Amino acid sequence: MKLRDTRTGMEVVPADECWRLLGTKAIGRVGVVIADRPIVLPVNYVLDGEAVVFRTDPGTKLDAAVRGQFVAFEVDDADLVYHTGWSVLVTGVAEEITGSDALARAKALPLEPWAAGPKAHHVRITPVTISGRRIDRRDDAEPD
Amino acid sequence: MKLRDTRTGMEVVPADECWRLLGTKAIGRVGVVIADRPIVLPVNYVLDGEAVVFRTDPGTKLDAAVRGQFVAFEVDDADLVYHTGWSVLVTGVAEEITGSDALARAKALPLEPWAAGPKAHHVRITPVTISGRRIDRRDDAEPD
Repeated sequence: MKLRDTRTGMEVVPADECWRLLGTKAIGRVGVVIADRPIVLPVNYVLDGEAVVFRTDPGTKLDAAVRGQFVAFEVDDADLVYHTGWSVLVTGVAEEITGSDALARAKALPLEPWAAGPKAHHVRITPVTISGRRIDRRDDAEPD
Repeated sequence: MKLRDTRTGMEVVPADECWRLLGTKAIGRVGVVIADRPIVLPVNYVLDGEAVVFRTDPGTKLDAAVRGQFVAFEVDDADLVYHTGWSVLVTGVAEEITGSDALARAKALPLEPWAAGPKAHHVRITPVTISGRRIDRRDDAEPD
């Protein structure tokens, strides 16, 4: 049986399936609050168990904004032809990975920076919540 | 000549090109602040001139969070093979579109809801800032 959000008609994705879906993608978006206002920036990421790891460039807005802060992390996938898709939202605390052992482990993750900058800081989001929604309009006519 | 962010090596995309890029996509992510914490949710959207229009379902977290609030709106595109891509970030104030003329105009936009819910509220983000970044690692070896 699929769980559905009665307000939106979207299927609710269980947490274990959310983690599986996060493992299928490489680009997510980090939402942070700066001076009471939200910003959203894309990052490439990997999972390390049930944590999200990405890199930041020292001195950038994102680097400063995420340290020790409560952040949002969103990943989605959409099929524009069939109007199907899913999204997963993680919220949690972002912290720079420090300490030689933890940093060695982070540097061994398959996380290659895309941009030309040094991206010297590894950031880990330790999740507090994870939630997911799936839209499949082909389901609409089917009984639940 | 391309402008580059010296910290990240990313090309800075001018505002007019940011608007053109926004016009090429259909899915964006809205960042809002709820109880001092950020959340990020995907929406399908269209441009109405230099404003972003999307729909929300009444009673949802997103619907409540965006009304009259300062929000972020992010769109990106990435090529995982070549590690190239761009992202555009709009920040501005989100407001429900009301009034018969404005609503008729909004309803005439090519904005079809994906999920089965009613998505009865049209929301407009009037931009305060727009910025874009482009990554093209194939540029790295070329002189600027």
